Amino acid sequence: MLKPLGDRVVLKAETEEEKTVGGIVLASNVKEKPTTGKVIAVGAGRTLDNGEKLAPAVKEGDRVLFDKYAGNEVEYNGEKYLVVHEKDLVAVID
Amino acid sequence: MLKPLGDRVVLKAETEEEKTVGGIVLASNVKEKPTTGKVIAVGAGRTLDNGEKLAPAVKEGDRVLFDKYAGNEVEYNGEKYLVVHEKDLVAVID
Amino acid sequence: MLKPLGDRVVLKAETEEEKTVGGIVLASNVKEKPTTGKVIAVGAGRTLDNGEKLAPAVKEGDRVLFDKYAGNEVEYNGEKYLVVHEKDLVAVID
Amino acid sequence: MLKPLGDRVVLKAETEEEKTVGGIVLASNVKEKPTTGKVIAVGAGRTLDNGEKLAPAVKEGDRVLFDKYAGNEVEYNGEKYLVVHEKDLVAVID
Amino acid sequence: MLKPLGDRVVLKAETEEEKTVGGIVLASNVKEKPTTGKVIAVGAGRTLDNGEKLAPAVKEGDRVLFDKYAGNEVEYNGEKYLVVHEKDLVAVID
Amino acid sequence: MLKPLGDRVVLKAETEEEKTVGGIVLASNVKEKPTTGKVIAVGAGRTLDNGEKLAPAVKEGDRVLFDKYAGNEVEYNGEKYLVVHEKDLVAVID
Amino acid sequence: MLKPLGDRVVLKAETEEEKTVGGIVLASNVKEKPTTGKVIAVGAGRTLDNGEKLAPAVKEGDRVLFDKYAGNEVEYNGEKYLVVHEKDLVAVID
Repeated sequence: MLKPLGDRVVLKAETEEEKTVGGIVLASNVKEKPTTGKVIAVGAGRTLDNGEKLAPAVKEGDRVLFDKYAGNEVEYNGEKYLVVHEKDLVAVID
Repeated sequence: MLKPLGDRVVLKAETEEEKTVGGIVLASNVKEKPTTGKVIAVGAGRTLDNGEKLAPAVKEGDRVLFDKYAGNEVEYNGEKYLVVHEKDLVAVID
Repeated sequence: MLKPLGDRVVLKAETEEEKTVGGIVLASNVKEKPTTGKVIAVGAGRTLDNGEKLAPAVKEGDRVLFDKYAGNEVEYNGEKYLVVHEKDLVAVID
Repeated sequence: MLKPLGDRVVLKAETEEEKTVGGIVLASNVKEKPTTGKVIAVGAGRTLDNGEKLAPAVKEGDRVLFDKYAGNEVEYNGEKYLVVHEKDLVAVID
Repeated sequence: MLKPLGDRVVLKAETEEEKTVGGIVLASNVKEKPTTGKVIAVGAGRTLDNGEKLAPAVKEGDRVLFDKYAGNEVEYNGEKYLVVHEKDLVAVID
Repeated sequence: MLKPLGDRVVLKAETEEEKTVGGIVLASNVKEKPTTGKVIAVGAGRTLDNGEKLAPAVKEGDRVLFDKYAGNEVEYNGEKYLVVHEKDLVAVID
Repeated sequence: MLKPLGDRVVLKAETEEEKTVGGIVLASNVKEKPTTGKVIAVGAGRTLDNGEKLAPAVKEGDRVLFDKYAGNEVEYNGEKYLVVHEKDLVAVID
């Protein structure tokens, strides 16, 4: 299991086919092109100045829109994952 | 539904025609040219140092002036939206 | 009506003629040339770390000196306005 | 009257002749050359994180040494003034 | 013994062979390639604004994924170690 | 009298000869070359976020080592002084 | 005596020969090459936002690993010392 640290979240990027099923999210070519994925695991969250943790605003299973160029790409037990900071998550797709 | 995260807001950019109806907001060519749009959804708001949320100053349905070059462009179920940070909203047009 | 957001203020830049009436404010050619305008509307003000608002130090009708290169230029219902951050206001001209 | 905003201070730069009378302050050619002036008006002062104002450490009439390249130059009712941030004031000359 | 200071952590980078045993973590070639290692020693942790220490979220013996280009490389008593800041640790591999 | 403002300190740089008397402090040619001087006057000190002043850690008469490239050079009543920020003072030479 | 100011620490860099005696600390050629030294004197420590001092985590006599390119080099009474900020100390070598 990959347990993300701090304000990080582990994502599984969606294939083009999965995007179509869940309501196509096509970023137009002009702007920063966010892309979609599913939340696999969340960290403890960002640490505030007073030491308290700010629980992440997303949870396992959420479908999210995120900044395409953010994060670390890792392959674990044959699967590809992305580990991103919570600030790079743009929206939850309900 | 696109649920924006953190201090983000989902907007629907206005067409030139919609601008005319709602009192033309023509940015002159000299400065940074803001443009107009309608608020579709708001996030929980910015998190302050003490962990509290600062509710966004705009609400669904508000007509707003915003920084033209800000945000992510996304297309969801055939509609084009912009997801911007609240700090890129310049004014509400009453 | 343009309701500025956050620490922003809506200004109406003065014409050269209006400047003369109100005590000429001619910025010399050497330094950053501030210019003059009238406050049309003020926002809620800057949000402090603890979430409180810091009411703007200027009010509607004040004549102000401001940094010439700051802000967004907008035209609303045929009138040209400038939307600037409060920090770009240099002085009130009494 | 020019009422400076925030942590700004309005100064009247000294002429070479005035400098001589008040104890020559000649900045050597090597370093950043500060210059001298008189305080004409002070603002409310810098706003701290908790919203309180930090009263300026100088008052009207003080003779000061300041960073020559700082501030906005303005001419008001035929007189030339400099509006600088308090942090650009180096010392009071007693 | 190397006792890391502040928010630093001492790691032993894994050989390719060790990676295979513990579930291959192969970073794809596209993104920032994190790599794996074992925690040897942790510091007291980051100091918060109020002076308190934020205990590190990892402990001796944890297997971690970290940013490949971070940290100082040192050789101590013939062994090679990496001393990294906690913020450069991406995830714990359970 | 030069009264430094904020966290500034007025110094009198030492001549080579004075350095020898007080235990030669010769900065080697490799690194940033600090130099020595005597404290002539101290300001009220740095202002903390809560508005309190942090009294300077040096006092009039202290012999100090400081960053050679820091500060403003001024000549006052025929004497050359340096006005530096306290953070540019490296050590007190007892 | 050199009394370091703020969060600074005075070090005596180790010769190659001293390194061998204390367990060779050879930084490999790839990364940022930290080097070793002994703590000669510590300052009062970093000042926190609330004005309190954060006592340094090292004490006189500690053997430390530090960032090779940090600090000021000074020669005092014929001896060469390094004055570095505490944040440039990587680890204590027990």
